[in-house]
Amino acid sequence: MNIQRLSVHPRYSQCVVSGEQIETSGIVAHDLSQGIGAQTRDVLQQLDALLALANVDKTRLTRVQVWLADMSDFAAMNEVYDAWVDTAHPPARACVGAALADSRYRLEIQANAVL
Amino acid sequence: MNIQRLSVHPRYSQCVVSGEQIETSGIVAHDLSQGIGAQTRDVLQQLDALLALANVDKTRLTRVQVWLADMSDFAAMNEVYDAWVDTAHPPARACVGAALADSRYRLEIQANAVL
Amino acid sequence: MNIQRLSVHPRYSQCVVSGEQIETSGIVAHDLSQGIGAQTRDVLQQLDALLALANVDKTRLTRVQVWLADMSDFAAMNEVYDAWVDTAHPPARACVGAALADSRYRLEIQANAVL
Repeated sequence: MNIQRLSVHPRYSQCVVSGEQIETSGIVAHDLSQGIGAQTRDVLQQLDALLALANVDKTRLTRVQVWLADMSDFAAMNEVYDAWVDTAHPPARACVGAALADSRYRLEIQANAVL
Repeated sequence: MNIQRLSVHPRYSQCVVSGEQIETSGIVAHDLSQGIGAQTRDVLQQLDALLALANVDKTRLTRVQVWLADMSDFAAMNEVYDAWVDTAHPPARACVGAALADSRYRLEIQANAVL
Repeated sequence: MNIQRLSVHPRYSQCVVSGEQIETSGIVAHDLSQGIGAQTRDVLQQLDALLALANVDKTRLTRVQVWLADMSDFAAMNEVYDAWVDTAHPPARACVGAALADSRYRLEIQANAVL
């Protein structure tokens, strides 16, 4: 099976396409001074860009994993997520709380999609 | 690749079948007054039902992720899980602790399977 | 689709090959007296061995999930991880903190790869 690695760093690829399967790394916000709403928008924009690199869009998502630094951000994250997700083609999703690599990260999102 | 979404909510699909791959959302118990044993049974029954929707059963599971609100529930969750899992066809599994979206949730389970 | 289960325990398979997809269970260290560096080496050696069982190697990894018991171990885990990962073929990766099943576990790693 052919593997294509996109946006490759020494430690990880931001996106890996193997056959028709697409997997992203955990995505965190660029601007860490922002709160949950802006960080969620930032992460979802990065996800859209990664999917575009793989020549697909959010209608091809199969599963999304959301980690929140603080589960009390659940409603505020969902407000942005719900406005972003394609409600006719929503992926499977799980959202749990977790300590993240930088204390300023409010959330991290990892996604699976198909070509 | 064809994508079929099952039990679709605006925010998420409970089950997504892409090609021959099946992914579920994180599943939580319906009756939140119950303890870990009953919530585990509840979640595994829902998983069986989702797999049936996709025309497969637990012998086709490839991976299961379990999140526990409290890792001290590990043994009690496993007692129910071990009685449920097909010991001739067990999926890969990981189980870690995590804050869950409602403080009454004792566990959440997400699964991957194949047709 | 054919499913092959490798290193099968009653509760879980350490590795599941379905079609051309490979999924491992969460892997933890054997020697729990060790710190984060040695536990990371131990887990990555076990991952290499599981991949070999499936007749592949780390160049075929598509995604790796790392859970740390304590996110302050992030830099020490990465030091070992960075020396191990094939920088020309790095998988997608996510790393978050989580309570693990035994308080002596410093990390747990789950991986996806393809044939």
